[in-house]
Amino acid sequence: MKLTKQEFIIGQIAKTNKKNFENYVITRIVHSLNTDEVKFLTQQYVKRPSGHALTDLYLPQISLHVEIDEPFHKKQVIKDVDRELDIINATKHQVRRIKITDSLSHLNKQIDDLIIHIDSEIQKHKKANQFHAWNYEQEYDPSYWSRKGELKLEENPRFRTIVDACNCMGQNYKNCQKAFYKSKLYKDHHLWFPKFYDNNEWDNSISDDGLTITEICKSPDKASRHFQQCMNQNTLRIVFPRSIDNLGYKLYSFRGIFKTDVETSSIEDGVVHRRVGTSIKVPQGETL
Amino acid sequence: MKLTKQEFIIGQIAKTNKKNFENYVITRIVHSLNTDEVKFLTQQYVKRPSGHALTDLYLPQISLHVEIDEPFHKKQVIKDVDRELDIINATKHQVRRIKITDSLSHLNKQIDDLIIHIDSEIQKHKKANQFHAWNYEQEYDPSYWSRKGELKLEENPRFRTIVDACNCMGQNYKNCQKAFYKSKLYKDHHLWFPKFYDNNEWDNSISDDGLTITEICKSPDKASRHFQQCMNQNTLRIVFPRSIDNLGYKLYSFRGIFKTDVETSSIEDGVVHRRVGTSIKVPQGETL
Repeated sequence: MKLTKQEFIIGQIAKTNKKNFENYVITRIVHSLNTDEVKFLTQQYVKRPSGHALTDLYLPQISLHVEIDEPFHKKQVIKDVDRELDIINATKHQVRRIKITDSLSHLNKQIDDLIIHIDSEIQKHKKANQFHAWNYEQEYDPSYWSRKGELKLEENPRFRTIVDACNCMGQNYKNCQKAFYKSKLYKDHHLWFPKFYDNNEWDNSISDDGLTITEICKSPDKASRHFQQCMNQNTLRIVFPRSIDNLGYKLYSFRGIFKTDVETSSIEDGVVHRRVGTSIKVPQGETL
Repeated sequence: MKLTKQEFIIGQIAKTNKKNFENYVITRIVHSLNTDEVKFLTQQYVKRPSGHALTDLYLPQISLHVEIDEPFHKKQVIKDVDRELDIINATKHQVRRIKITDSLSHLNKQIDDLIIHIDSEIQKHKKANQFHAWNYEQEYDPSYWSRKGELKLEENPRFRTIVDACNCMGQNYKNCQKAFYKSKLYKDHHLWFPKFYDNNEWDNSISDDGLTITEICKSPDKASRHFQQCMNQNTLRIVFPRSIDNLGYKLYSFRGIFKTDVETSSIEDGVVHRRVGTSIKVPQGETL
């Protein structure tokens, strides 16, 4: 589970291995940028107004995607994307295209022009104080958030394990297996680690705008008991849905504070939770 | 069969795809050199005093090999290499090693140092007038040799098809299927396209120093007739053995002029041919 930055980078490139041109283009971009300050993801699922798609290269710090267009390999809009995957909202992101032609010098020229463009985008972001060098080690380090003292949705806090997220929230666990915990820090709050994809017992989902969670219990016996519990409890939920990143590793991302919407919930259509907060204070300290 | 330079280069890199670190190192070298003047081959079979081996990267113009050492992946000396393969004699060649460690910056540093070394080797060869820019198109172009007017063993003439080699030798064929042709240009000469690996009818081989060919007919009925023919004919053979390059494409490489050694030949141990020449004039002209 502990993935070093080197393993992460090599893993991203390895995802392009099966497609020879893609591998050539991506490695030329990565080796030309020649910096470990710029994060990159390959074959990342993205959500666009046109639907879900796989992006060949994604540079999150400058919201830029690179698509490699091979003749006779038309990219399809993906209809049924596995909801377990970590999917990035790419609306308003920039997309640049590299066209595979039969001239290597023409291909190299396109890539080298793209590198210039990426460099200038980075400079632009740096000038506007909007570029934060890729700090891989701190990205999944719960003590980073402890030092900050707060989880903010806009900063996209992510944890690799439920224990990490729980302890960042002051639970002080050694290990934990459940998806639902009473918060030790906040009265009438629960920590919730739902799966937003169809599984044995549940079919939970979150709306595209991230504002509404629908919780459907698939077992008819349990459904009515669960519904009653939710109506009675009426607690707030600090939500960290489970997903799988593009290398197949687990992620628990902070998605905000949710409150059960008693009005619109029903046994048949599920319990509805609405987002009521996008940040929460966590116990401050150097270490957990 | 027609492989463009781009396809050749992409194909070389694709051979490294299955090994993630190898792919990372090779692509960093190739993209950093950033020139199509330098030929490179990946996973090329080589012959060394210690035995056969696979070399991770081979730069033939400067006789330099790069070996990528991954921990726990000990390179083995290969005992039984398929004799059909194009095998390069790497005795006296330079070998540089890249050690995979768990620090990407240390890995990059090693590769960048290697690039500097390669550049300086290229400069050294250029100063000594020993560097010829990689001309992929002419490498397998029979009209290149027609313009030169001569095949010289030291220049490693290679053809992609028997037709190309035959026509370069003045045969003027449209297509041809056999492995043995009476030369139209040279009296008492034959063009021979042997397989130096075990096959249905023959088990022919060439000595490591390239001086001696042993021709063994596997069918006992034919063997004695073949032996008698060779003894009576006593012609010279212009030899282009068939091999398979590291991308799986056929090659017919000029290996010299051979004469049957009547003294040491026998039905049991095969017909022996000795090299008596390393160059031969071909009809001169711009086109075939």
